[in-house]
Amino acid sequence: MKKKIRVVQYGVGPIGASIVQLMRQKQALVIAGAIDKDPEKAGRDLGEVVGAADAPWGVKVSADPAEVLSHPVDVVVHTTSSFLTDVASQLMECLEAGACVVSTCEELSYPFRKHPELAAKLDEAARESGVTLLGTGVNPGFVMDKLVLGLSSACQRVDHAKAIRIVDASRRRIPLQKKVGAGLSVEEFQQRVTEGTVKHVGLPESVAMLSDGLGLDVDTITETVEPVVATESIRTDYTEVKAGQAAGIHQVARGISHGEEKIYLELNMYVGAVDASDTIQLSGEPNLTMVIPGGTHGDIATAAVSVNAIPALLAAPAGLRTARDLPFCFFPPLAPP
Amino acid sequence: MKKKIRVVQYGVGPIGASIVQLMRQKQALVIAGAIDKDPEKAGRDLGEVVGAADAPWGVKVSADPAEVLSHPVDVVVHTTSSFLTDVASQLMECLEAGACVVSTCEELSYPFRKHPELAAKLDEAARESGVTLLGTGVNPGFVMDKLVLGLSSACQRVDHAKAIRIVDASRRRIPLQKKVGAGLSVEEFQQRVTEGTVKHVGLPESVAMLSDGLGLDVDTITETVEPVVATESIRTDYTEVKAGQAAGIHQVARGISHGEEKIYLELNMYVGAVDASDTIQLSGEPNLTMVIPGGTHGDIATAAVSVNAIPALLAAPAGLRTARDLPFCFFPPLAPP
Repeated sequence: MKKKIRVVQYGVGPIGASIVQLMRQKQALVIAGAIDKDPEKAGRDLGEVVGAADAPWGVKVSADPAEVLSHPVDVVVHTTSSFLTDVASQLMECLEAGACVVSTCEELSYPFRKHPELAAKLDEAARESGVTLLGTGVNPGFVMDKLVLGLSSACQRVDHAKAIRIVDASRRRIPLQKKVGAGLSVEEFQQRVTEGTVKHVGLPESVAMLSDGLGLDVDTITETVEPVVATESIRTDYTEVKAGQAAGIHQVARGISHGEEKIYLELNMYVGAVDASDTIQLSGEPNLTMVIPGGTHGDIATAAVSVNAIPALLAAPAGLRTARDLPFCFFPPLAPP
Repeated sequence: MKKKIRVVQYGVGPIGASIVQLMRQKQALVIAGAIDKDPEKAGRDLGEVVGAADAPWGVKVSADPAEVLSHPVDVVVHTTSSFLTDVASQLMECLEAGACVVSTCEELSYPFRKHPELAAKLDEAARESGVTLLGTGVNPGFVMDKLVLGLSSACQRVDHAKAIRIVDASRRRIPLQKKVGAGLSVEEFQQRVTEGTVKHVGLPESVAMLSDGLGLDVDTITETVEPVVATESIRTDYTEVKAGQAAGIHQVARGISHGEEKIYLELNMYVGAVDASDTIQLSGEPNLTMVIPGGTHGDIATAAVSVNAIPALLAAPAGLRTARDLPFCFFPPLAPP
């Protein structure tokens, strides 16, 4: 029997906490450390920070990445920010320490168009250390890209790809309700969109992955964010949304090739959505439609996709990988290391 | 630019013909030969045999595998039989000639339980030649295994997996209508089931793949085949099914672990099915359901899955691979070699 895989959690917010609890269930893994600079978490036992029933775990959260990474680490699961420029130095430090990295950083999922130089730099660092790096999650990483590519493997020809995701934000964690602008006036919403703070990150990355994976030769990617306006008052754990206020986002990304739309991704994430679902439509030979009634739960699935990717990531060739390269898999809890 | 990938079609029946027409559309491929022992095909131009609009292609169908394989061949696409014992020597000959093989042989899709020795022998031959071998298609290979595993990558826990496929056999090729017993009396149907000639091959292979991929520890796989009895007369291109005759199959495979059902696969393939669809249900954390309304078209998708697998197969480590190991992908027609 091989040694257990030593994992470190980098970022112990709501998603990081969910990932840690899931990793704790895998016999092949041992949680070797955790990193979070939040003074309310650093120095405390990780099991207590994430509210585990079997806490304490005897693993401290540390504010010092260098200290944690000075011990042997096989895999870092990284959940700190959606933006690649914010996290590139964090990722570099992990790679240079010789750890594979799975990150939920949305812009890392397929960074080749928006951040080609950073992508090349991270790829080079990973190869030099002989480790792999992957950005993934539920969206990007699953619903609007990987699952679309999965469905396309049954197609002889794909002319157009569409994915529509409808999420009831009232069932989701609080940062998400903020991110979708629930409870803002329409004017505030528009201002936050302009500032870039109300928005889901990752749709253009999914468009880029689909364009390459389906050979759709997209030359232009557009993106719009509009409010879904509440027609009646809705109360959530986080806030009250009054009629006329923004309940969330209606976000559309398009992939255009020579003036023609080839990819259409639509994300509706708002408080009070009653028809939550994920729908994929491929036009080609044959036309194929796939529906996930109720939709893939964003938080549960982001943790699942990230942790399930660990065995495939460890088996992949060194470098920056994407969901496109790796087999879909489940990580059985009793799997041997 | 690299040289084009030289492909050979082994078996030019309905599925083989569909595969050949699809491969002809891929710029990265060149069809280097075809093998079929049928005297009505051998010696003729492949394009003419498959009814291509742009025939002749200048590629002859040969009845002699050794002759075709004596030329450089990168990939053989093999479509001759569902049963591994029938095709093992054909596959060995291809592997020993140094060709990768994609086969629609259902029993090859996950042969480790039913044919462990043959699987080991084929794996060894592939490794010795430094090539890869894969059994795939729509079912097994996609609907009831790969797609289930794909969906499971969004799950934190999977307790039970179910897939139900309903196919309208009247829209399918004639051999399939025969295979599902359309037009037989119920007595004849039962007799053919006993003989093993009325049956879809591959469900136990999908159960085995799911058991390993989901960690469900299945110790027993059961399988039943029953007739779907026509309640009114139905006419197809192939035959007429009268009320009271068998219209097709209702086939169920179960994976049992320590007396408890963990996997349930149900295939309904009959003339006149009006509710064609593929449905996957995962029970766990979270519960997840996926529906493909209308279902994945068996013949189109079998050709698609087989041809789309070629790039991933060429990139995979040598040996016997399964759909479980390889990333889902689409093979863009304009992809460079």
